[in-house]
Amino acid sequence: MSEFVRVYDSYAASYDPRTRTPKWVLEHITAKDLEGDANRNKSQFFEDNQIDPAFRATLESYKDSGYDRGHMAPAGDNKSSQKALNETFSLTNICPQVGLGFNRDYWERFERYVRDLTKKAGDVYVVTGPLWIPKPDVDGKWNMQHPMIGQPPGLIAVPTHFYKVILADGRRGKGSSREVGVGAFVMPNAPIDPQLPLTAFTVPLEPLEQLAGMRFFPNFINATRRSAMDQAALAWRQYGMQQLKPFDRVSLCQDMAALPAPSGQLLLTSGSSSPSSNAAMSITSSMTAVPEHQISVPKTRSVAGTTHLCEIAGGCKLPPPGSWQKNQQSNKQLKGSSSGHSSGSSGGGSSGTSGGGGRPSNPGGGGRSV
Amino acid sequence: MSEFVRVYDSYAASYDPRTRTPKWVLEHITAKDLEGDANRNKSQFFEDNQIDPAFRATLESYKDSGYDRGHMAPAGDNKSSQKALNETFSLTNICPQVGLGFNRDYWERFERYVRDLTKKAGDVYVVTGPLWIPKPDVDGKWNMQHPMIGQPPGLIAVPTHFYKVILADGRRGKGSSREVGVGAFVMPNAPIDPQLPLTAFTVPLEPLEQLAGMRFFPNFINATRRSAMDQAALAWRQYGMQQLKPFDRVSLCQDMAALPAPSGQLLLTSGSSSPSSNAAMSITSSMTAVPEHQISVPKTRSVAGTTHLCEIAGGCKLPPPGSWQKNQQSNKQLKGSSSGHSSGSSGGGSSGTSGGGGRPSNPGGGGRSV
Repeated sequence: MSEFVRVYDSYAASYDPRTRTPKWVLEHITAKDLEGDANRNKSQFFEDNQIDPAFRATLESYKDSGYDRGHMAPAGDNKSSQKALNETFSLTNICPQVGLGFNRDYWERFERYVRDLTKKAGDVYVVTGPLWIPKPDVDGKWNMQHPMIGQPPGLIAVPTHFYKVILADGRRGKGSSREVGVGAFVMPNAPIDPQLPLTAFTVPLEPLEQLAGMRFFPNFINATRRSAMDQAALAWRQYGMQQLKPFDRVSLCQDMAALPAPSGQLLLTSGSSSPSSNAAMSITSSMTAVPEHQISVPKTRSVAGTTHLCEIAGGCKLPPPGSWQKNQQSNKQLKGSSSGHSSGSSGGGSSGTSGGGGRPSNPGGGGRSV
Repeated sequence: MSEFVRVYDSYAASYDPRTRTPKWVLEHITAKDLEGDANRNKSQFFEDNQIDPAFRATLESYKDSGYDRGHMAPAGDNKSSQKALNETFSLTNICPQVGLGFNRDYWERFERYVRDLTKKAGDVYVVTGPLWIPKPDVDGKWNMQHPMIGQPPGLIAVPTHFYKVILADGRRGKGSSREVGVGAFVMPNAPIDPQLPLTAFTVPLEPLEQLAGMRFFPNFINATRRSAMDQAALAWRQYGMQQLKPFDRVSLCQDMAALPAPSGQLLLTSGSSSPSSNAAMSITSSMTAVPEHQISVPKTRSVAGTTHLCEIAGGCKLPPPGSWQKNQQSNKQLKGSSSGHSSGSSGGGSSGTSGGGGRPSNPGGGGRSV
């Protein structure tokens, strides 16, 4: 009845036998990990035979589910070792992810953003994992709803959201920042408009931790640091939300309704500003999109050698969209034995292939194994 | 990030910081625990201050939720010590339970049944806990849905079902059985018709364990014992299901659809018998209710000193309904400071009171704190 923690070269993961997904996956990425010619075309998804078969996620459950087998620790973070790369294909590192518009697109760019951080801070620590977030009913009651894939009783829970908590540690002086940058992000497991700024997905740690049921980096992120970073996160989130079109803003607020801002925080409002203990509600009330150049970029403080990630990472900007579609086409000829997932209503597209592992035109490994 | 296990005099519990309920609560009950004058009117529900406030279930969340604060380790199992009794009122031992028709009725009788087992087997070990079981959609896909109570992000998940796994150990020779009886039961968190036989809620361990994400009593229940007991459990479940009216049978099968019988098991069918790997489906196809006296009582084997609980416990028959309503009336005058839960659509009735602690007319402590 204890926690299933698995330790690999490329990551450590805690496996949840009830959801049959990881709870959290921890990586330590340095620039060195991203140099090399390890090739994801040589990797294959595999079941974790250290887990009791009664609780093990199976390849069969993902087949024809309509969902991608989405990496928590990305394959692309491991170019220096084929073994480390292969390990990321264990189902203990995998969750059902919507493919088109998410795993193969916005989320993939987010993963590239994290890799780019190693140039600014030598050591990047990332915790990635699934979330199940309820939504309010029309009567104001909270309701959890999500699909499960496979066959009962061994079903795999499809997350409603995913999180990454990133700690970019520049103290060892290999990059341009000498501080520790901390940022947390939550995204819905759904297609995301490529125009949406990453800052709109910034979240404070405290409510994320309450939803996830765990503290992140508790030895480093103490109450003082958390409080300061959460205030900064709200400012960055507000900055991102202001750039959204009204429809996108309302939609994102609904998706994130269970992640309210802590009460009493300063809200940066450029439109109508109603005092409210709930930033999400306040944001929806400001219905006009503001052009980016008219919004003042947050200036948040550094506290105890710690600063919000968006301060050290050029405002948390995603790299441009990759070329997954192109790779998919070209790889179809290379590899016929790919997963064979059929298209599904939940966003899984045509049967996926691997690719992009060693392509100079695709620095982030845009091609996705699905 | 490790498991929160709490050890009390009366029980041990693993707390789940994501659902804000216990995962499992383990008790060891003997006849001695049931003798004494500990009084639940002297007990009060309390929050577990050993849990980080970020993850702690709160009294406030239950207030006006429409759900009872349902004990996993029952208060009534602790008559010999006021301290042990008081400990069962920690929210770490509590889940949101539907009050009328379930916590105060069918589930309360089930708890009395467990207490009565101590007369047949000296030592009774019980694991009790919540379950979240998905249902099939019309298109055959599986979907999880359940309410959550309180305010985000610190919500408490309302279980769809509850389980008890019971190990009645007669080897120390204090009771009428010298074997170890093993039985597992799953009930929906919903009003249950008092006429339904307990045997209809018998389940095999293997699928229950797969849903709960854990093995029960793994040092004693090895693969041999589990396999034998699961075969017996199917026979007893079939026996109970045959006694149901068609509507109740279909309804219960739908509630339990994710708990299929293992394939290849012997099905005791008295009506139409269609070969099927899914006992639940097979049972629904037999649409006539069979009078109890026409159904042959299962005769299941003892294996490795272990027998199905229903073999040693008079066919797993519940004691008669208690007198919660009566106690509620009489206790209203006794105690005005009770919980103040308002009635809700989910089954919570009028504001509950404690009672029944020392009533000779109510051996099981039928009155429920809600």
